[in-house]
Amino acid sequence: MYDYGPLGFNLRNNIVEVWRDIYKGKEGFMEIDSETINPREVFRASGHLEKFSDYVTYCKECKSPFRADHLLTGLVDNPDILNIESLEKAFAEHGIKCPECGGELGPVEEFNLMFKTQIGPGTSRVGYLRPETAQGIFLNFLNLYRYNREKLPMGVMQTGRGYRNEIAPRQGMIRMREFNMMEVELFIDPEDTAWKGFENIKNEKLTLLPNTGNATVVMTVGRAVDDGIIASQALAYFVYTTKQFLTRLGVDPARLRFRQHLKDEMAHYAVDCWDAEALLSYGWTEITGIAHRGCWDLHRHSEFSGADLSHFKKFDEPREEIVEKVKPDHRALGPKYKQKAKTIATALALINPSDAGPDGITVNVDGENILITPEFYKIEKTVEKMSGERVIPAVIEPSHGLDRIFYTVMEHAYTRKDDYTVLKLKPEVAPIKVGVFPLMEKDGMDILAREICDKVHSYRMEAYYDGAGTIGRRYARMDEVGTPWCITVDYEALEGPKKGTVTLRDRDSTEQKRIKTDDIPHIIEELLAGRPFTDL
Amino acid sequence: MYDYGPLGFNLRNNIVEVWRDIYKGKEGFMEIDSETINPREVFRASGHLEKFSDYVTYCKECKSPFRADHLLTGLVDNPDILNIESLEKAFAEHGIKCPECGGELGPVEEFNLMFKTQIGPGTSRVGYLRPETAQGIFLNFLNLYRYNREKLPMGVMQTGRGYRNEIAPRQGMIRMREFNMMEVELFIDPEDTAWKGFENIKNEKLTLLPNTGNATVVMTVGRAVDDGIIASQALAYFVYTTKQFLTRLGVDPARLRFRQHLKDEMAHYAVDCWDAEALLSYGWTEITGIAHRGCWDLHRHSEFSGADLSHFKKFDEPREEIVEKVKPDHRALGPKYKQKAKTIATALALINPSDAGPDGITVNVDGENILITPEFYKIEKTVEKMSGERVIPAVIEPSHGLDRIFYTVMEHAYTRKDDYTVLKLKPEVAPIKVGVFPLMEKDGMDILAREICDKVHSYRMEAYYDGAGTIGRRYARMDEVGTPWCITVDYEALEGPKKGTVTLRDRDSTEQKRIKTDDIPHIIEELLAGRPFTDL
Repeated sequence: MYDYGPLGFNLRNNIVEVWRDIYKGKEGFMEIDSETINPREVFRASGHLEKFSDYVTYCKECKSPFRADHLLTGLVDNPDILNIESLEKAFAEHGIKCPECGGELGPVEEFNLMFKTQIGPGTSRVGYLRPETAQGIFLNFLNLYRYNREKLPMGVMQTGRGYRNEIAPRQGMIRMREFNMMEVELFIDPEDTAWKGFENIKNEKLTLLPNTGNATVVMTVGRAVDDGIIASQALAYFVYTTKQFLTRLGVDPARLRFRQHLKDEMAHYAVDCWDAEALLSYGWTEITGIAHRGCWDLHRHSEFSGADLSHFKKFDEPREEIVEKVKPDHRALGPKYKQKAKTIATALALINPSDAGPDGITVNVDGENILITPEFYKIEKTVEKMSGERVIPAVIEPSHGLDRIFYTVMEHAYTRKDDYTVLKLKPEVAPIKVGVFPLMEKDGMDILAREICDKVHSYRMEAYYDGAGTIGRRYARMDEVGTPWCITVDYEALEGPKKGTVTLRDRDSTEQKRIKTDDIPHIIEELLAGRPFTDL
Repeated sequence: MYDYGPLGFNLRNNIVEVWRDIYKGKEGFMEIDSETINPREVFRASGHLEKFSDYVTYCKECKSPFRADHLLTGLVDNPDILNIESLEKAFAEHGIKCPECGGELGPVEEFNLMFKTQIGPGTSRVGYLRPETAQGIFLNFLNLYRYNREKLPMGVMQTGRGYRNEIAPRQGMIRMREFNMMEVELFIDPEDTAWKGFENIKNEKLTLLPNTGNATVVMTVGRAVDDGIIASQALAYFVYTTKQFLTRLGVDPARLRFRQHLKDEMAHYAVDCWDAEALLSYGWTEITGIAHRGCWDLHRHSEFSGADLSHFKKFDEPREEIVEKVKPDHRALGPKYKQKAKTIATALALINPSDAGPDGITVNVDGENILITPEFYKIEKTVEKMSGERVIPAVIEPSHGLDRIFYTVMEHAYTRKDDYTVLKLKPEVAPIKVGVFPLMEKDGMDILAREICDKVHSYRMEAYYDGAGTIGRRYARMDEVGTPWCITVDYEALEGPKKGTVTLRDRDSTEQKRIKTDDIPHIIEELLAGRPFTDL
């Protein structure tokens, strides 16, 4: 478990703000923040209780736990797909011992990766820390759907903590037990394959690695959909949106690709699934997954909670449909069932004809099950006008690993100049926007520099005062943390013909310009909005 | 456990942004976001493992758990200060039975309020969900202090989840098991009683309820410090900052007071502690605590972790101080201890003279404890020039309960007009800034209204399109969720002399003005910044 410190927090928060700008601002999606502890029932419905696990083995001597598949890395192909039996067999074959003490390993066991806790006193109410933020959106579906006036499409977003009780966390920020996510759940009509914004982006290019081959291809979004490579317009739109998002953050397009899940890698319910992968020093690493999850999520939650999570889809024109109905024969029922006849008739009329067996229909009357044989009813076909039908919405889910994106942004911005680091972060995400230095901490230069620093800070742009060391060293410090611009207050700022001006230095070009002190917040805002430094 | 839905999320997030504007923007504090699960050791140091508990009793029949003191409400004065014995005695005296089934109650037990979990496989590593965000700041003190170039004062802020496994959560958002906090830890020199910004606010007024009496008094911040009612300038400054913060959010100043903790209510280490209390339908309720925690926190963490968490405080002038040192007698040590003599001499020189006993000093040499009797060393007094001394920083902590503040903002904004609610939220915190309505959804009015809505939204100001029902009903819907302004697109907006203008309606005055369509984002920005509607 890590935290990010003050600069890391700013960088991470700036990434979240770009995500908000895209999904909440541009796409108009709604944002929620649901609870992180949920009762067991939620994860029974989501499938995490059953499936969200890795295999562990403990050393019989030193009791150290190991992730079973990790012990077979390099010895067996794809050890992560082996089951308990195959793992134990492979251990025996390769003579695997405890890597810590050389002791014998115990049996392989399943280990659920959710953090478990108790809600309230006693042990009766088991809860788990959420392994993803998505479930909180599905749980809230009915409220959100009502808030959205029962219309589709509906986009809901959430950022926050996810938890995964890893057996062996590794690779720094890539696999942590407590991590941060940005998830979007887009609920759509499962039969509607068009997406409104698609026209605007269909000629944009994507670097794809489809699961039909081993080669990366560059093609337009439109072509990928037309050729059936990406399953739908909506999915393709959000694959492209993810590309826009990541490159805006500073992820290098040349080190970014979208890899389609292999058929046996995809969840059984998934229609299609693409991972945004970044090339890092760890190799190609998944940093975002964009999945077309079909109707699985709402279907499962509906099934486990008994709530109707369907959408009423109005037909363009009312349709005439042939409807079968059970029609009780009141004349026959009366003599046989006496006072109960009316209740039985009512119950019969509510039965779905498909539930009628060859022997008849069983109805429950006052707690008693009664078999009503076919002579007491008819099944009639009628033509009815239907204004619409109920469908379970499908889900498209762009799920971002915030920590992995953070790490990618850092690695792709990392450059060396002479003997120090220059972090070429995009200004929008840089944790500090402006360094402010007095040439020397005397004669009022320090006072003015502090005033400038406070002024910029009061505009909610991070400014950092530094009065220590040579100016070159102070520039280097700011370059190392990715600060795009530095202001220096010199003697000329205080008197002479250039009074009221300071120098502004650009990180990437190291060019300097003199600007008016009064213009500083305004100029920084413009530079942040994308005005080129050379244009000042 | 609750969540806030899309509108609640926006309102809550806007509250956090105001907090950031004050502490991060104006005060220049740094923000972090630390992990929510911590190992047991952290809460041993913080004291939560020992003290963070309530008393519980279970019904022997139905097994329901009850918070013991709640069962005595109205029967005993201050049941929350009773211990196990007194609680059980009071149960017997008053014949308390299970409120659920009338069954007999079992013994009273201590119940720790932290959510417990296991970190990683096995049961050896116990972790807890943090009961407050503050500990994450103390744990990071050394890194933060270094980042701050080892200077005080240093302000660090954090917002995020807190967890409290309540026996009996109650009163909606007032006492939840999973809640949200905004905490600030200000580290100061414990001997420095002045605070830089104090001069600017000393004539401002506070409504105080000091622990010396039962009456509320209104007095200036300066007077409260001079009279010794509030313990220090820094504490008083942040009591006043809290007032500014809360009233800016819309907390009614007439329903806000600062109550000093009673002497026996205050933690033993606290120097002084004030609660901001709001008058709610629940009665006066604590929504923020502002505590001067002395040196307790860093002292404890230093003690339990062995890390030096002190600040080097430079004297204005170097001071001469008499220092005692152990001076080894090399001549005597040599003959007796041979090859070990040099190592023993080095070890002796590092010993604090106060650790020398009448029998001598025990030193550890190569794993062996050796008692060195007094004839082998002298304790010498020397005069040394000291440039400073090490002190453990004191902590001032404004700790905000975000959910309680949210609730207060809602209740204080709640008004009724005719037969519906008008939520008079401050525009800055309102979840939707602008409602946008076409007079009717036809003839292009709906298209223009959607364009305006998207435009405002793209400026990251929440806009909400509504085309359903009468305009009056749409105004009412927006009034109910506290939207300060509504725009209506009518026929005049599309043609005739007023083409290119729309009406803008003010929630509180219900006044309307015509403004240019192109000016909309700019005007909303100005109104948000405080420009009066009448001034347009």
